[in-house]
Amino acid sequence: MEKPVFSLIAVSTIDGKIAKHARHMSDWSSKEDKDFLHKMLGKSDVAIVGNNTYEVAQKPLSKRNVIVFTRKVQESLVKSKKLIFINPQNTNIAQFCEKNSYKNIAVLGGAKTFNYFLNQNLVNEIFLTIEPIAFGSGIALFDSGDKTEKFELVSLKKLNKKGTVLLHYRKK
Amino acid sequence: MEKPVFSLIAVSTIDGKIAKHARHMSDWSSKEDKDFLHKMLGKSDVAIVGNNTYEVAQKPLSKRNVIVFTRKVQESLVKSKKLIFINPQNTNIAQFCEKNSYKNIAVLGGAKTFNYFLNQNLVNEIFLTIEPIAFGSGIALFDSGDKTEKFELVSLKKLNKKGTVLLHYRKK
Repeated sequence: MEKPVFSLIAVSTIDGKIAKHARHMSDWSSKEDKDFLHKMLGKSDVAIVGNNTYEVAQKPLSKRNVIVFTRKVQESLVKSKKLIFINPQNTNIAQFCEKNSYKNIAVLGGAKTFNYFLNQNLVNEIFLTIEPIAFGSGIALFDSGDKTEKFELVSLKKLNKKGTVLLHYRKK
Repeated sequence: MEKPVFSLIAVSTIDGKIAKHARHMSDWSSKEDKDFLHKMLGKSDVAIVGNNTYEVAQKPLSKRNVIVFTRKVQESLVKSKKLIFINPQNTNIAQFCEKNSYKNIAVLGGAKTFNYFLNQNLVNEIFLTIEPIAFGSGIALFDSGDKTEKFELVSLKKLNKKGTVLLHYRKK
């Protein structure tokens, strides 16, 4: 069986914030970033989101295979053919994806979910969009990671005229 | 008199951290970033640093005009021909620079100093180097800003093979 590839897909500000607060939707990100996200979702076998992110992104994700990370279930709870709730503390997510033949996995956040993958050593790729804006304070991409991880830059692209930038990194 | 131009010059990780902790030196940044910093300092009339940053960067800054931000002085204290300690709470830094004919000002951090310029609406340019590494946790470029600021991307450059990226933004 092929190993799953976990790609973290995030949009951040110049000062590294993915949101102003936990319930802040990405209404500040550019059309070009949203287009890129949809393209990436189209190429992914499943999307993984945390519970908060799922609640704000339920509609755009409704037609896709989705894993929701939550502590509200003991291990896992199948909600529909395309939707499963999983407690990542009690489930081996890499094994779960392998068993379900999920090869390309889009991890969409939020911060807790991103942190989980970093701390579990499961980040294979990062697609980071940087919008030309600064929040001054807010939620970081990672905030409770306990190790330094090196990556290599695969590509670098300017997405629009105002200067939204897309960085693609691969785990070194 | 010409208005001073404040350029924030910072190196961050993919996850937007400028250091792991307050005393963490930028020993993790690339040679290419350090070369860029020296080039920028050569073009600047004065560098502004916070007290912590000054203590770790005293030697490389010894031949330059330096303003150290500190609460240890009431208003300002001239230490030598090239060195002045200023309390930014009690001094108008833009006026001070204008009076001293400082046109190009390199603001080198740390986070408290960067925050000060953001909150005072004094950020004209940001030169942000992003190293291909993630810390997981640490100190952000800004962390106590109270407003959203828009910028435009002036240029985008890959500095080396491993994928250090330099982003130049200008206040919109």
